[in-house]
Amino acid sequence: MSSRNIRLTLAYDGTDFSGWQIQKNQRTVQGEVQRALSRMHGHTVKCTAAGRTDAGVHATGQVVNFPSDIESIAPERFRDAVNSHLPHDIRAMESGVEAEGFSARKAARWRLYRYYLLPAAVGYPHLRRYCYRIRRRLDVARLDRLAQVLIGEHDFTTFAAAGDANTSKKRRIMSSVCYARGEFVVYQIAADSFLWKMVRSIVGTLLELEEQGSSPEALSSILNGRDRSLAGQTAPARGLFLEKVGYDGKEYPL
Amino acid sequence: MSSRNIRLTLAYDGTDFSGWQIQKNQRTVQGEVQRALSRMHGHTVKCTAAGRTDAGVHATGQVVNFPSDIESIAPERFRDAVNSHLPHDIRAMESGVEAEGFSARKAARWRLYRYYLLPAAVGYPHLRRYCYRIRRRLDVARLDRLAQVLIGEHDFTTFAAAGDANTSKKRRIMSSVCYARGEFVVYQIAADSFLWKMVRSIVGTLLELEEQGSSPEALSSILNGRDRSLAGQTAPARGLFLEKVGYDGKEYPL
Repeated sequence: MSSRNIRLTLAYDGTDFSGWQIQKNQRTVQGEVQRALSRMHGHTVKCTAAGRTDAGVHATGQVVNFPSDIESIAPERFRDAVNSHLPHDIRAMESGVEAEGFSARKAARWRLYRYYLLPAAVGYPHLRRYCYRIRRRLDVARLDRLAQVLIGEHDFTTFAAAGDANTSKKRRIMSSVCYARGEFVVYQIAADSFLWKMVRSIVGTLLELEEQGSSPEALSSILNGRDRSLAGQTAPARGLFLEKVGYDGKEYPL
Repeated sequence: MSSRNIRLTLAYDGTDFSGWQIQKNQRTVQGEVQRALSRMHGHTVKCTAAGRTDAGVHATGQVVNFPSDIESIAPERFRDAVNSHLPHDIRAMESGVEAEGFSARKAARWRLYRYYLLPAAVGYPHLRRYCYRIRRRLDVARLDRLAQVLIGEHDFTTFAAAGDANTSKKRRIMSSVCYARGEFVVYQIAADSFLWKMVRSIVGTLLELEEQGSSPEALSSILNGRDRSLAGQTAPARGLFLEKVGYDGKEYPL
């Protein structure tokens, strides 16, 4: 039986999930996606994702792939077909076909995350699941100067959670920038890959340094200290979105 | 015992409420607000709201007032005090003191609602509770030409739900406009007051007329027909927000 390698770009509201990765007796994004795909195919279908997002972390551009023996659906129509089986907090935003050996995880050249901060005394209830509210003004220019320190290749031991299983803590950061967008302050980071809870640890550290009025040099020495105890408190999952994944010559969402 | 008349501007996520008005064995916004106020005061406190929003309808600018015998809290500090007792899907955005006879309901000169339409084949899961997704492109210019027909004083019998208790169906519309905002198409309407489900009935009708390519004259004859069966299908509650309430010389949120 012939099989095609189908790509899906997924968006999800991470609030009610124990993260991406399938776990027994937990509601996970991978569990729900594989359940939908398996129902559609009439047999078990497994999928691979570019980023294994943690509990409570959202996505607007998670990329996954899976093998499909359904020949009657055009690649770009898988989006709607899969959506009819998915719960409402996960949506396939687009679909297509990839070469046989393509892995959404292994072929990914970079992942881009954004963290949404809301500097406000009170926040609208509609935003409560999708940002981290800070009860003070933020010095965006200072945050951005701090953020720039991280660009390039560094050992991120300082920003890895206890239990991170990666042997090398070296990562290459292509983008690390802080900017105001509407009522939000956004921290954007793109890297070849990330250590466990790395983005949230970086955000927590940036916020502490910004509050203290610290200089970029202070962040440099925290980074070079390679010691988790130097990092700030891990920022909550609800502000974090996996927004884009880059491949050779392409990125999703387009 | 002296008592002050406190004003609160409330925002709420209407998703998990059976509307504003208190009802037995239902989770309502008024019920939750009065429970919070009563807990804070140590005795029953009732509040009055400018707009009695329906089940599932949201607010970013609902205005309420209540009598308070707590003298130790400055008027503008009631916001934080009340928030510490409210559930997370209701937030007080500001508070202040009003004259003794002030009623948030009776003194309101106009209410402004916005309805958020999302013209897209698939919508981000984060938006699913806060807009109505339309699976086609929308002709915003046509919608706006249709919307303008409603400005001024008219009998809105056509757009009142069965069971609307208002004896007069005459209402004065100050603003009725449709515009694109980011990925959304927004319909904004301000009026002295509204009939039951009037905004959602108008939105449903505008969408039907837009899809048919109808002219403003078609809407005029529907309006002048004063017959509910001429209206389009009532649009879902989740796209509707009570955004502002106007008083003599003031509006909330400021």
